[in-house]
Amino acid sequence: MLIVQKYGGSSVANAERIFNVASRIAETYDKGHNVIVILSAQGDTTDDLIEKANEINPNASRREMDMLLSTGEQQSVALMAMALNKMGYNAVSLNAFQVGIETTPAHSVAKIRKISDYRIKKELEKKNIVLVTGFQGYNEFNDVTTLGRGGSDTSAVAIAAALKADLCEIYTDVDGVYTCDPRIVPDAKKMTEISFDEMSELASLGAKVLHTRSVEVAQKFGVNLVVRSSLTRAEGTIVKEGNKMESVPVRGIASDKEIAKVTVKTIKDTADKTFKLFSVLEKANVSVDMISQYPTDNGTYVIEFTIGQDDTAVAIESLKAAGYEDVEAKNGFAKVSIVGAGMATHPGVACSMFEALADVNVDVDLISTSEISISALVPEESVKTALIALHYKFQLSK
Amino acid sequence: MLIVQKYGGSSVANAERIFNVASRIAETYDKGHNVIVILSAQGDTTDDLIEKANEINPNASRREMDMLLSTGEQQSVALMAMALNKMGYNAVSLNAFQVGIETTPAHSVAKIRKISDYRIKKELEKKNIVLVTGFQGYNEFNDVTTLGRGGSDTSAVAIAAALKADLCEIYTDVDGVYTCDPRIVPDAKKMTEISFDEMSELASLGAKVLHTRSVEVAQKFGVNLVVRSSLTRAEGTIVKEGNKMESVPVRGIASDKEIAKVTVKTIKDTADKTFKLFSVLEKANVSVDMISQYPTDNGTYVIEFTIGQDDTAVAIESLKAAGYEDVEAKNGFAKVSIVGAGMATHPGVACSMFEALADVNVDVDLISTSEISISALVPEESVKTALIALHYKFQLSK
Repeated sequence: MLIVQKYGGSSVANAERIFNVASRIAETYDKGHNVIVILSAQGDTTDDLIEKANEINPNASRREMDMLLSTGEQQSVALMAMALNKMGYNAVSLNAFQVGIETTPAHSVAKIRKISDYRIKKELEKKNIVLVTGFQGYNEFNDVTTLGRGGSDTSAVAIAAALKADLCEIYTDVDGVYTCDPRIVPDAKKMTEISFDEMSELASLGAKVLHTRSVEVAQKFGVNLVVRSSLTRAEGTIVKEGNKMESVPVRGIASDKEIAKVTVKTIKDTADKTFKLFSVLEKANVSVDMISQYPTDNGTYVIEFTIGQDDTAVAIESLKAAGYEDVEAKNGFAKVSIVGAGMATHPGVACSMFEALADVNVDVDLISTSEISISALVPEESVKTALIALHYKFQLSK
Repeated sequence: MLIVQKYGGSSVANAERIFNVASRIAETYDKGHNVIVILSAQGDTTDDLIEKANEINPNASRREMDMLLSTGEQQSVALMAMALNKMGYNAVSLNAFQVGIETTPAHSVAKIRKISDYRIKKELEKKNIVLVTGFQGYNEFNDVTTLGRGGSDTSAVAIAAALKADLCEIYTDVDGVYTCDPRIVPDAKKMTEISFDEMSELASLGAKVLHTRSVEVAQKFGVNLVVRSSLTRAEGTIVKEGNKMESVPVRGIASDKEIAKVTVKTIKDTADKTFKLFSVLEKANVSVDMISQYPTDNGTYVIEFTIGQDDTAVAIESLKAAGYEDVEAKNGFAKVSIVGAGMATHPGVACSMFEALADVNVDVDLISTSEISISALVPEESVKTALIALHYKFQLSK
């Protein structure tokens, strides 16, 4: 079999953990499999580099941030190759330029366009364990790009798709996908399987276990995906096409913190007012999440939306530069979401959600819904209360 | 003018020093010049990475070491771009893959074969300050290579040659080339100019101020080369084709430490005995410096040679693997050398050198000579005594 494994930053944080991972890789290789391994940067490396950059220029360009941050993964793959060599295994580390991982142009939020299988195949033929830098690629200008936080998952799935791997294993520090973050809700339960749609929704709504886009790519290319722990032998969670799982209205709960709400007032009521405002943000590479707009008594409009707190400065600056005068941003929000493919066929789920939140006095601000999820913006300090109430309400520990 | 500047690791060791260098770059740019800057890894980054590697595998392959170490320079150029951006200057960082720096295959001791001018020219046309990773390239297998310690000097000179730059300035933490290391010999004198031949010889004999190969490349392509301090405004030393400088027999003194002497005994006296032994070392990528061979009473030969202490283990191992049984290595040597283009026309220089060393009781082991230099292997603890004695003997402070 051809197996792709991905190990996160905490799994390779120091020499001891690197050897722990190396042993698991070697074990897979010893079973006669071809093995491709995607690694993230070690432990706090990325955060340390960000801090270094901030010291010099808190508004560093995304291009240069990508150039800086991509070094972390290159260190990881080189060190892992050394560990495997030491254990007597042939291994070779490769960066994005060497593999040929082409992405879209946008820095720090690039998407993989194309992966060449040439170099990896050549190394596999030589019976090498192939170690590839996660999180990064290069764009049409031959500039280094990164795929966003957690992007190594997507690197792994995309490489699995490009090489037609039999299995893609995402190793993390938890042993699978839970109904809710077990650090917040102690009686959260591990799921043995989950549908691509639900996993994708949970991930995009804040469940850190998998990078959203990795799930979309896996679904698109039919990659066999498993999430499991690098520390235990537990079975993990299989992510696959959904079938009868739709009998359950709510499968999991996710939350996302460090959200800012931006309010833009006194907007003239033109047909393209919404488009115009959000095209300013798009040009500034600011991702907008929840949106609400409503008229006021004097005929102007208010548009409210949420963004990551990190983008607050850029968003306000670019809006003001584009002529919006009445712009306000407030940090300290979080989003709690319930996810389930069965939601569409079970009426009253939204009602139950807001009832549960009201019962524990959690203020609900913006609301957004999709086919299989409902999200509510709440004060950051209410997240734990909200999650426990929702987890109980939908009986997810059963 | 098109000016290439190279700043070493200590010049970019922290945010403050990065801004100091950024100011000097900006100053050059503000005079209307096109500026290409080559940077080394920050301060102790390379040493820290080596330590990290050693913790995992003290015999890490050179390929993986190159992959690991090359990340240091990439961090430097990204951080410098951020600093220049912050100061309001357009700057772009590029790594070896982006510039197109092709090298010979050998890892950790690669030589630059070819540099593409395409990307750098494009960036200069956009009026960008171009920041390029020193010390590295990639080989015909598309693998990352490094040029050896100090290789960033060579990167700078080679880029100056490829782009036909008007000037190549090597910025270091000393303000030029001295007659001897001023930290060891306090009355060492800065030279205003020195010939390529002498500089090359001094560098290869241990003067840390310039990477040997950078001088050779500068000479070959007629690059205008200046060595100066990144901390002061001092004039520095111009390195150029020699002319009347030959009137002086000795121009400078260099030393090199951490040398091991290897002695191989009971070698059968065949015509290819020397070739055979050194081809073993070449295959193991071990650089040999001084060599001596002599017969013994029983008809076998002894071959003695010096190598860097770091290579001792590899050298012994590969010689034993090749069937040499009687192999011994001794660490703790240093080499002191006198250099001067006028040596050839001034008889008695060698005699004066050994007289000076004998006067201060420095034991001389192996000896080697070139057209313009004489070197003596001495115990490491005698280096300072030897240098002061030689500096005085040849009146270099005058």
